[in-house]
Amino acid sequence: MKRIAIYPGSFDPITLGHVDIIERSSHIFDHVIVNLAINPAKTTLFNSKERKLMVEDAVKHISNVSVEAFDGLVVDFAKKRKASAIIRGLRAISDFEYEFQMALMNRSMAEDIDTVFLMPDERYTYLNSSIVRNVASFNGDIKNFVTNFVAQKLINKFKEEKAHELNR
Amino acid sequence: MKRIAIYPGSFDPITLGHVDIIERSSHIFDHVIVNLAINPAKTTLFNSKERKLMVEDAVKHISNVSVEAFDGLVVDFAKKRKASAIIRGLRAISDFEYEFQMALMNRSMAEDIDTVFLMPDERYTYLNSSIVRNVASFNGDIKNFVTNFVAQKLINKFKEEKAHELNR
Amino acid sequence: MKRIAIYPGSFDPITLGHVDIIERSSHIFDHVIVNLAINPAKTTLFNSKERKLMVEDAVKHISNVSVEAFDGLVVDFAKKRKASAIIRGLRAISDFEYEFQMALMNRSMAEDIDTVFLMPDERYTYLNSSIVRNVASFNGDIKNFVTNFVAQKLINKFKEEKAHELNR
Amino acid sequence: MKRIAIYPGSFDPITLGHVDIIERSSHIFDHVIVNLAINPAKTTLFNSKERKLMVEDAVKHISNVSVEAFDGLVVDFAKKRKASAIIRGLRAISDFEYEFQMALMNRSMAEDIDTVFLMPDERYTYLNSSIVRNVASFNGDIKNFVTNFVAQKLINKFKEEKAHELNR
Amino acid sequence: MKRIAIYPGSFDPITLGHVDIIERSSHIFDHVIVNLAINPAKTTLFNSKERKLMVEDAVKHISNVSVEAFDGLVVDFAKKRKASAIIRGLRAISDFEYEFQMALMNRSMAEDIDTVFLMPDERYTYLNSSIVRNVASFNGDIKNFVTNFVAQKLINKFKEEKAHELNR
Amino acid sequence: MKRIAIYPGSFDPITLGHVDIIERSSHIFDHVIVNLAINPAKTTLFNSKERKLMVEDAVKHISNVSVEAFDGLVVDFAKKRKASAIIRGLRAISDFEYEFQMALMNRSMAEDIDTVFLMPDERYTYLNSSIVRNVASFNGDIKNFVTNFVAQKLINKFKEEKAHELNR
Repeated sequence: MKRIAIYPGSFDPITLGHVDIIERSSHIFDHVIVNLAINPAKTTLFNSKERKLMVEDAVKHISNVSVEAFDGLVVDFAKKRKASAIIRGLRAISDFEYEFQMALMNRSMAEDIDTVFLMPDERYTYLNSSIVRNVASFNGDIKNFVTNFVAQKLINKFKEEKAHELNR
Repeated sequence: MKRIAIYPGSFDPITLGHVDIIERSSHIFDHVIVNLAINPAKTTLFNSKERKLMVEDAVKHISNVSVEAFDGLVVDFAKKRKASAIIRGLRAISDFEYEFQMALMNRSMAEDIDTVFLMPDERYTYLNSSIVRNVASFNGDIKNFVTNFVAQKLINKFKEEKAHELNR
Repeated sequence: MKRIAIYPGSFDPITLGHVDIIERSSHIFDHVIVNLAINPAKTTLFNSKERKLMVEDAVKHISNVSVEAFDGLVVDFAKKRKASAIIRGLRAISDFEYEFQMALMNRSMAEDIDTVFLMPDERYTYLNSSIVRNVASFNGDIKNFVTNFVAQKLINKFKEEKAHELNR
Repeated sequence: MKRIAIYPGSFDPITLGHVDIIERSSHIFDHVIVNLAINPAKTTLFNSKERKLMVEDAVKHISNVSVEAFDGLVVDFAKKRKASAIIRGLRAISDFEYEFQMALMNRSMAEDIDTVFLMPDERYTYLNSSIVRNVASFNGDIKNFVTNFVAQKLINKFKEEKAHELNR
Repeated sequence: MKRIAIYPGSFDPITLGHVDIIERSSHIFDHVIVNLAINPAKTTLFNSKERKLMVEDAVKHISNVSVEAFDGLVVDFAKKRKASAIIRGLRAISDFEYEFQMALMNRSMAEDIDTVFLMPDERYTYLNSSIVRNVASFNGDIKNFVTNFVAQKLINKFKEEKAHELNR
Repeated sequence: MKRIAIYPGSFDPITLGHVDIIERSSHIFDHVIVNLAINPAKTTLFNSKERKLMVEDAVKHISNVSVEAFDGLVVDFAKKRKASAIIRGLRAISDFEYEFQMALMNRSMAEDIDTVFLMPDERYTYLNSSIVRNVASFNGDIKNFVTNFVAQKLINKFKEEKAHELNR
């Protein structure tokens, strides 16, 4: 039986910390599906098409990983793909609490799907998409935090926004 | 002297975790007043009238509990009702920090009103209104988290919202 | 029906933080029993007779409080005294975790006895018996942390220990 | 060589907890620059001019402190002013996590600027600008939390808002 | 390639929380080796032979699990058995910190072995061997926390100890 | 006025994490005194003379740092040396709690001495003396965690201990 795991997230945008967790997962499971959450109620910097493109580019070097967008509950997606596990990265205490709540909630809805927590390289302990967006918005250097492809997309995005502001 | 306690919250909507804390409080105090916070600056899924109705339905089996809406500081409401304690549920570390800040702030404004922390059943450790709203919005199963009355209200609310979206 | 609560601890020795919690408890319950834990397996600075004497002196100004030593499980003592609650002070996150484990364990053994958490005055946030013993052992000033009676006992205890060391 | 430190923040508005940290910093460093963050993407109660005025008033009794607004990354401002340290107040665990992430991020962008954490007086443990705004919006007493100047500004601000609401 | 994981611990004694984690691990990996730590410098209630016997009894219903004692570093044992992962249960924040330190330390010594964190059933959140030993020492009811075999061993152990004390 | 800071600890033995904090402190203060705590009641692997030697070797490359042993309260030592600050490294939440308690306690005994918290390089987040001793006792590789001098001392120490055990 093939062991399939789901790695859900917004990936707005994907960081090197995410890529690190996906690489580790790919050693433990036969196949890993990165599950891009589409939540129309949540505002994101990049739209779902842009975010998917960046994830696909960032994981193209790992053979047993695929990417899918889904606009429902993670457990429903996991059941549909016959996954046995949901993967989450744990970096800090604040992650821990929220992740535990979500994991217990998911277990109450799908008893036989376990959440597996992995720890990224310590270089990525402090990294998350929100901090990356923040640094990029002030023209800070982000090349240690995201892939070149994502760095370029971020630079373009904030250039557009500024041009847009000037034209208002 | 009758010992009165206040249990404040937004209850958007009330969960079985809230009901569990109210039941425990009703054993310790002579009377418990559930204080529904009305904050016009805060957006809620249900309006205050709907929220009050759901709380009243959820606690109707407990004789020494009443429900009141109030649009001011909890300590001002507690003084008005001559309460000697404010009740808060503690589930997790993140609760702890925020709750402690609020409790110390309240104590600095009303020295003789103590905050009493109770622990819900561990089945409700992961439960909060925001997670319930999130699961319901994706048609997830919520019957283990809220009363039947609330479950029905949530289903109707999200049906309305989707109908509304389609008509736009 | 009289509402009785148990406040368990080693009290080696009792600090002003403990006294603060006992005073707060005495406003919420009809009677509070300070339950001095006797655990022969645990080494203490003061023996159980000395510890009881210091607790009794520290609470003699509160009418509805009594002190009892017990060498068993807290829940067994609580059942014996028909208590409806166990009181615990919460000062910091590290307390929180341990206290929650104990509270859940106790609930699993005595379902109808709830643990009630209270917050001491913020002056006592950093205070515990172990830090007090440590400061006293180096002749540090402890008058803001314990009653005069306890301070004297601590000074005598460490004087004895040093005399004892010199005579070896 | 003069040792310069930066104390960054939104100060919306400055609280007595902030002032406490600035005073402590002024004993450790030769000069402290309060760095008022201007982030056009973030909504604040007071505009940057009002916030700067309140900070200036609150620190006017400390000789080696100045105030500057800046709309970029803190590390860029620190480099520009040849500062060797960034100062942050630590009150609680939730601070800790976020502050550590920011400090590691800043270190990755400016290796030779260290973040120095100081602890405010315990009276200010529970204090932050958001709680102060909240209490003031309900006409709660805030004189223990902010300077008289800030208290007056808050009262005026919420009076304006209410007048504005009535006129709509 | 067979995926092997190590589950290290003292198991003094094994609890139902440990068994829960072992069961979950057995679904994710091809083979799980429970690694009983033998540390001559650490005092345990049960000797290593007794502890191994109790673990073996507790996991005899799971086909892909074996038990081995080892008196060295976990990473050295993992390398010897060609394991690709070390499994740890995460129940609470205090676990989290210690476990992260150990996981980072282990990674620094064996880069290609990842630590995989799993979450036990919430019924076991509060459970650890130390609390079980404590409750058993006071004749408390432990049947919800350990297997029948372990419960019997604990009862016998404390009976022996008391007989021993009386004979001194 | 010269700014003097105290960096207290047991240093049993000093790690590269400690050295990192001392280096950072030496940039902020005019002089840093490493205060080796001598507590006769506490068992250490190395005696105070050995520990002092290892600290002195580890900081010999930093000009404004000296080392002194002291068997009393840190605040008393700080007063004696006219220090204006006590330095502590913060790596993790568990540090945070304990450090805050100690810092508040110290402030209550010496109001004008502030505790300054610094963050070590993230490579040392997981490092402490106890883990180093543990790894060394099992012949694990410790060259990334301590200086060569300390590594040699640890290897000798555990060789001695094993020889001693065999001769018993």
